[in-house]
Amino acid sequence: MDKIKVIEIKESVFKHNELNADSLRNSLKKRGVYLLNVMSSPGSGKTTTLIGLINLLKDKYRIGVMEADIDSEVDAIKIKENTGVESIQIHTGGMCHLTAAMTKEGLDGIDESKFDLVILENVGNLVCPAEFDTGAVKNIAILSVPEGDDKPLKYPLMFEVCSLVVINKIDVLPYFDFDIEKCKKYIHERNPKAEVIEISAKTKEGLDKLAAWMDNELKNYKGV
Amino acid sequence: MDKIKVIEIKESVFKHNELNADSLRNSLKKRGVYLLNVMSSPGSGKTTTLIGLINLLKDKYRIGVMEADIDSEVDAIKIKENTGVESIQIHTGGMCHLTAAMTKEGLDGIDESKFDLVILENVGNLVCPAEFDTGAVKNIAILSVPEGDDKPLKYPLMFEVCSLVVINKIDVLPYFDFDIEKCKKYIHERNPKAEVIEISAKTKEGLDKLAAWMDNELKNYKGV
Repeated sequence: MDKIKVIEIKESVFKHNELNADSLRNSLKKRGVYLLNVMSSPGSGKTTTLIGLINLLKDKYRIGVMEADIDSEVDAIKIKENTGVESIQIHTGGMCHLTAAMTKEGLDGIDESKFDLVILENVGNLVCPAEFDTGAVKNIAILSVPEGDDKPLKYPLMFEVCSLVVINKIDVLPYFDFDIEKCKKYIHERNPKAEVIEISAKTKEGLDKLAAWMDNELKNYKGV
Repeated sequence: MDKIKVIEIKESVFKHNELNADSLRNSLKKRGVYLLNVMSSPGSGKTTTLIGLINLLKDKYRIGVMEADIDSEVDAIKIKENTGVESIQIHTGGMCHLTAAMTKEGLDGIDESKFDLVILENVGNLVCPAEFDTGAVKNIAILSVPEGDDKPLKYPLMFEVCSLVVINKIDVLPYFDFDIEKCKKYIHERNPKAEVIEISAKTKEGLDKLAAWMDNELKNYKGV
């Protein structure tokens, strides 16, 4: 392997966000509202995955969705039209991630107390959202096959902060050099406790496993 | 279309970066060094595209590469092994983008004066890198087919600041719902002047057009 010169450039990007996140998490817990933070690259299939998941769970739980984006309402409209559940759009005004304070503002807007589960679809970005605790109970990451199996090496924090990694678009595995076992190995090097579920949101393969994971989470959270 | 509640959350993220960028751009211009800033989502094929491009131009121009990543040296090593050109890795220490000051630090590290063209592969991210002028002569964005044709709608700034959009992975068009004409329309709504080149870095289709664009840029820059 060639020797490569490496230049380290450090700069602090964290903004005393942790206290806000813990406070929000405690407040949600008291009211039995489960907040799920969903993160991924742009185009990994977050919205389509959520539509599939919500349609499997909406008869059992009261679900609300917050779609965070730099601009446009396309995702919030897509969720509402394809699931019927309440959905709002959060515009971040150029921000690449949500802080706990911004998440709280969104929750106030959707009136979260009437839901069992509020799903936050974070801004499509494998970097910044991982750095800011939103106050969610759990973080999940969606990684799609076309992005490549090496992403856990290059975006380590994302895979460290997520309890579950959903590998999406497994229907196109034949057309890409994506090694699922290698990818799982990289994920577990970053986070030995991470669960991994393989799905195709398009063909719906594996969505039942994702729904079972979510159902189990909600039961444990409510202490049922 | 359903009515969707939209919550605007504004926060400033810009850090008086413009002066630094202009100063760096002027300094590079005086020495005839062309800095190209390449941006995209994670997994869009930036590194593979650059390898193809460099191999078409390296006999004509002296080329250096700066690979920016949160962590890992995989990209810098890949460039060096597959093209033979000098390549360094810039670790951003968690930062999701490069500022002009960070870019200058990288250029000092590679000793940019000995090159005609220095290519900066920015952090894989469609949001933040677009907000920070690195001092480059031109920005280009790579958008890959699996990410979806709607990305210019959701990440408008990226497409506004780029002179050229490279649509990559056209070899997998048959397996995705990606409408190239619709995508071009969205790009041109954001940026009427943007050029669009379609390629497959994997099969090398279209790389000649990308090399011709770069060659033309370098000729104009040097006033040849």
